[in-house]
Amino acid sequence: MNKITLLMYCKDRSNIIASVTNFIANNGGNIVYIDQHVDREQDIFFMRLESEFENKSFSIEGFKDLFKTTLVDQFKIKWRMYASNRKPKMALFVSKYDHCLYDILGRYNSGELFLEIPFILSNHNDLKPIADSFKIPFYHVPITKDSKREAEQKQLELLINHEIDFIVLARYMQIVSDTLISKYPNKIINIHHSFLPAFVGAKPYHSAYKRGVKIIGATSHYVTAELDAGPIIEQDVARVSHTHSIEDLIAKGRDLEKIVLANAIKLHTNRKVMVYNNKTVIFS
Amino acid sequence: MNKITLLMYCKDRSNIIASVTNFIANNGGNIVYIDQHVDREQDIFFMRLESEFENKSFSIEGFKDLFKTTLVDQFKIKWRMYASNRKPKMALFVSKYDHCLYDILGRYNSGELFLEIPFILSNHNDLKPIADSFKIPFYHVPITKDSKREAEQKQLELLINHEIDFIVLARYMQIVSDTLISKYPNKIINIHHSFLPAFVGAKPYHSAYKRGVKIIGATSHYVTAELDAGPIIEQDVARVSHTHSIEDLIAKGRDLEKIVLANAIKLHTNRKVMVYNNKTVIFS
Amino acid sequence: MNKITLLMYCKDRSNIIASVTNFIANNGGNIVYIDQHVDREQDIFFMRLESEFENKSFSIEGFKDLFKTTLVDQFKIKWRMYASNRKPKMALFVSKYDHCLYDILGRYNSGELFLEIPFILSNHNDLKPIADSFKIPFYHVPITKDSKREAEQKQLELLINHEIDFIVLARYMQIVSDTLISKYPNKIINIHHSFLPAFVGAKPYHSAYKRGVKIIGATSHYVTAELDAGPIIEQDVARVSHTHSIEDLIAKGRDLEKIVLANAIKLHTNRKVMVYNNKTVIFS
Amino acid sequence: MNKITLLMYCKDRSNIIASVTNFIANNGGNIVYIDQHVDREQDIFFMRLESEFENKSFSIEGFKDLFKTTLVDQFKIKWRMYASNRKPKMALFVSKYDHCLYDILGRYNSGELFLEIPFILSNHNDLKPIADSFKIPFYHVPITKDSKREAEQKQLELLINHEIDFIVLARYMQIVSDTLISKYPNKIINIHHSFLPAFVGAKPYHSAYKRGVKIIGATSHYVTAELDAGPIIEQDVARVSHTHSIEDLIAKGRDLEKIVLANAIKLHTNRKVMVYNNKTVIFS
Repeated sequence: MNKITLLMYCKDRSNIIASVTNFIANNGGNIVYIDQHVDREQDIFFMRLESEFENKSFSIEGFKDLFKTTLVDQFKIKWRMYASNRKPKMALFVSKYDHCLYDILGRYNSGELFLEIPFILSNHNDLKPIADSFKIPFYHVPITKDSKREAEQKQLELLINHEIDFIVLARYMQIVSDTLISKYPNKIINIHHSFLPAFVGAKPYHSAYKRGVKIIGATSHYVTAELDAGPIIEQDVARVSHTHSIEDLIAKGRDLEKIVLANAIKLHTNRKVMVYNNKTVIFS
Repeated sequence: MNKITLLMYCKDRSNIIASVTNFIANNGGNIVYIDQHVDREQDIFFMRLESEFENKSFSIEGFKDLFKTTLVDQFKIKWRMYASNRKPKMALFVSKYDHCLYDILGRYNSGELFLEIPFILSNHNDLKPIADSFKIPFYHVPITKDSKREAEQKQLELLINHEIDFIVLARYMQIVSDTLISKYPNKIINIHHSFLPAFVGAKPYHSAYKRGVKIIGATSHYVTAELDAGPIIEQDVARVSHTHSIEDLIAKGRDLEKIVLANAIKLHTNRKVMVYNNKTVIFS
Repeated sequence: MNKITLLMYCKDRSNIIASVTNFIANNGGNIVYIDQHVDREQDIFFMRLESEFENKSFSIEGFKDLFKTTLVDQFKIKWRMYASNRKPKMALFVSKYDHCLYDILGRYNSGELFLEIPFILSNHNDLKPIADSFKIPFYHVPITKDSKREAEQKQLELLINHEIDFIVLARYMQIVSDTLISKYPNKIINIHHSFLPAFVGAKPYHSAYKRGVKIIGATSHYVTAELDAGPIIEQDVARVSHTHSIEDLIAKGRDLEKIVLANAIKLHTNRKVMVYNNKTVIFS
Repeated sequence: MNKITLLMYCKDRSNIIASVTNFIANNGGNIVYIDQHVDREQDIFFMRLESEFENKSFSIEGFKDLFKTTLVDQFKIKWRMYASNRKPKMALFVSKYDHCLYDILGRYNSGELFLEIPFILSNHNDLKPIADSFKIPFYHVPITKDSKREAEQKQLELLINHEIDFIVLARYMQIVSDTLISKYPNKIINIHHSFLPAFVGAKPYHSAYKRGVKIIGATSHYVTAELDAGPIIEQDVARVSHTHSIEDLIAKGRDLEKIVLANAIKLHTNRKVMVYNNKTVIFS
């Protein structure tokens, strides 16, 4: 059975839902999931749809062409269409912190994540043993002031050679280059250890401690050129009190980071996320 | 502009989504909201849909007939269809606790709730001044062992005379009769002051205290013949500790009860709730 | 039975706990509650203590003097001591929003709050009927550009004449003057409708909507000269999604504001809050 | 520097706090932490206290004797006293689920847990590779109907030989024997995958799915003779909806189980938990 997932948005128009559902039915598709959202302020229509095709001669490439000529131009639709059974390929970027890495690999091992991990990349060698114990290739790409451009080139080669679909920065302590960001737009997921937009930048737990907040958070977002300002995918929080030291905040934060990042990865790989206007629409 | 909300479920079938969206488009409707759910275990398809009709001669009664003859029989659909601009009429049943009453009337006054409150009914007279200050008719229908049947008769008359659509038990401390339940199936909303199914029955905060739980909850559900066992609409929880006395739990619980009941009322009046198999599907 | 509550802090010193507990025992006190906290970074010791005195000739003024001469100078203690049975007097400042006002008065009426409300003050007349229905004096003190100083004078007179202990700004939409702040240091409680320090200033729900956050919050804090930067007493959050409009955020936020402000009032009146370094220590 | 932690409870009595703090000060101790709780219903006084002793000749055994003769008999105190620098020894019992095991070992490796893990025991061999990769001895003690008594004997030997202080059942899918429970009273920590007391026993996620709850939970408790009825140490919850299948509940539940169990272990090893009347007092 062929199954596709369609994500699309366009100016809100009369009959857009019926037009798309009709088109799919007329071409042998059975819609098994449909969800939509209208941004009333911007007057934009968003839709996520899954459809099955029993016809054995079905080809997603042919269907994409048909969708394009039949509807895309007419409604000026922005869209992506995926073969539902194809696992996206994720590159894991890490530095020295291991908690998110352990968490992701544990979930990966247990079959909880619908994805492949062709490699783990780090600017340090510390976490190589973990990659080894999970039998995943590990590339050490050190970064110094002078080697930045070279390192970036190395990263790009690895990403292309392994046909990577998206990148996860699992507490990767380097700012990724604009080149990388522009080649993977809304495809680089970062975990920031604060409740954004509070405490942008370095050492957010220290800032949270200093401000005396009663709740701390973690935020997963797509990386854009502006630091910690990309579209938010997922956030979560935990209560703290005056009794918690900075170290306590960091320890509590680790639990948040793990869960928030894992949820963001799942939303992304299940094709539940659309980005518009630097915000996300998250389908259920 | 005429606008309708359709809630429906049926055996999951190929092309059910396209069939319904087609039917609506062919009859001049523009679908502005669609959401669906499939219960894979039971193989049941659920859908909620809103559609606008520009045609001035549109009548919801006529459209209901058309829907029935065109689709309902073919797909064996269970369904309800509402004119979206009609405010449902809610009867409020209370006893002596005033926190949920104050909360609902405050929201009602501020325009947060899409409903009318033709009357408040109580088995005690204590809360009449509150009803008066909000200028809502108040009926005192006392209940004793001997007057039960008579009281029930009085309630039914009031409900029918005021064309009540649904009933909210805002800490009404009486068990409603099977007759009432059967006349208002999935139309009587109760707030139970525990995290069901834990602590069914009377004095749940006392039981929670005794068991030493670290989290308490509140549950809003439709009333069915079996006590506290009806379909759950909404739940919420709050942390507690050994430092909380029973009185503290009760005070904390009041906040939960207010919010959980208000949310359940909003979900119900916005036609977001479907019931199947003693469970709810809550559309977003 | 006389009962006192002592809040104190000083440089952390050996034997400080034993010295205080000894002093109280030696003067006929029975300690019924003790909690302490050490800020390791600043090396400051905080303590909250409740003690009962059976001696009928006990006077809190005399005991204060004794405490001062015996311990305060020796340990350089900053401290406050309260007669536990004296209800603090709270002035309620409001503008046009009624949800926090209704919530506080509902709790006040039900006996949940240990305080007196000598009056409600507003720069508008809209909420007078609510004050009337709860039989609490209402003062209308309008504020225009030209009348600011005069209005402030009027406020101060009312506060002094009614022997007000602390002020609650229940969505009071005016910036309070530095004079007022300096006369009521850490005694003016504000509710800010965001998760501070995110979204300082006006229209935080609009900013939250624009940023696309997945969680919104509310913060109760003591008012200081810097806007929305005072010591945080309490915070809470709620999940939101792309489906929520600004109006939805505002409605959800109202529930947060009510609960967060009520909790802050309770912590303050139960003498559970100490302020140091623009942060709060909240005893349990 | 010698440091002790004292946990004690007794009938609530006048001057109990001053008596204990005095005793410690008189014997050269400097109290660095004190927290207390009174159960007003049962009239029981609980206290947790940490004290440092600079005297180099200090011995905890001698101090225990002194405490016993000076105060224990007089106030009929139930108590435990620990040398704060001694890491408790934890035995980990597992079966086939690996998520809690990975989580605990990850925290252990990162230095987050103040404890030693002399061995991991399982009734299956599946998780041996994980124990190996963390270099912790692994004992396979299979259990069949006929081998139960023998297996229990083997367990007891291991526990005694390794001087185990407490046992953690990290999704150990066997009921532990009454002998084991009586030898380790309030020293066996279990993680139950529901919000107790809802869904006692096997397959709680299936029951939660069937009942249609909107929130699921996990509970960590001390094991007692009655199944899932021991004193609750920690609980946490997560929102679910009709869209979640049983598999989704199980996956979401894994995250809860990990965090709830880790928190319970930390509370236990930091000597923050006292048990009375089948409930816990959790010091902050």
